[in-house]
Amino acid sequence: MEEVSRPKEKTMEEVKGFVRRVLLFKFKAETAPDHVKQLIKDYSNLVNLVESLKTWHMGKDASIENLHEGFRHVFELTFEDAEGIAAYMVHPAHLEFHEQISPHLEKIVMIDYKLTSFHT
Amino acid sequence: MEEVSRPKEKTMEEVKGFVRRVLLFKFKAETAPDHVKQLIKDYSNLVNLVESLKTWHMGKDASIENLHEGFRHVFELTFEDAEGIAAYMVHPAHLEFHEQISPHLEKIVMIDYKLTSFHT
Repeated sequence: MEEVSRPKEKTMEEVKGFVRRVLLFKFKAETAPDHVKQLIKDYSNLVNLVESLKTWHMGKDASIENLHEGFRHVFELTFEDAEGIAAYMVHPAHLEFHEQISPHLEKIVMIDYKLTSFHT
Repeated sequence: MEEVSRPKEKTMEEVKGFVRRVLLFKFKAETAPDHVKQLIKDYSNLVNLVESLKTWHMGKDASIENLHEGFRHVFELTFEDAEGIAAYMVHPAHLEFHEQISPHLEKIVMIDYKLTSFHT
C-alpha cells in the first residue's frame, strides 16, 4: 500500500483508467471452513491465469460495529480498464471458478467502479 | 495504484498491520445529487482532519451485472491498524460528518478487514 507514504495531495482526482471490482460474499453455513479456504485459494490463483486481472486482495470482516449485513468476506480485484473486466468475465478460468463457487454463496454484492483518490 | 507494476509475487500474504474499511452506501432518493456531491466532498476532507485515516478512495458503480443491490457508492478507507480505526470512530470531525450524512442514507454495508494480497 504505497499510497500512504506519498506526498500530500490536496485535490480529489480520478485514477486514470483503473477499474476496481469489490465483492462481498456471504458463504453458506453448510460449506465447511476448509472448503471456503480452498475456494479462496483458487480465487486468488485467477491472478496467475487471467492476464487482465491485475491485482487481487481479500479480507475477512473484523469490524465491531456490526454493519456487515452477514457479509464476512471482501474481495478487491483491479483491472486496467472496463475492457479488462469484460475479458475477465468470459475467461475460461473465471467461468470455471464461477461454477465452483456459486453453489456455496448465500448472497453477494458486487460493484465495479473507477477509483477516485484522496491521499494524505 | 503502484501495486500493478510490482514484480511477480507467488504467495498470498497479509499486508502487515493495514486495516481497510469498505463502505457501500445507498443514498436516499430525495437527497439531491448536488447534496450527495457535497457530502462526498466533506467525506474526502476527513483525510485532512483525522490523523489516523491514511487513504480515502471512492467510486460510483459502473457494473453491468446488476449485482449492486442498490448500493451505488463505494468508499475505501485505510488505517495503519485497528487502533487507527478506533481513533477515527471517536474523532470529532468524523462524528460531525456522521451526523451530517446519516439522514441521507437509505442503507449501508460496512466491513473492516486486514488486507491479504496477491499481485501479478
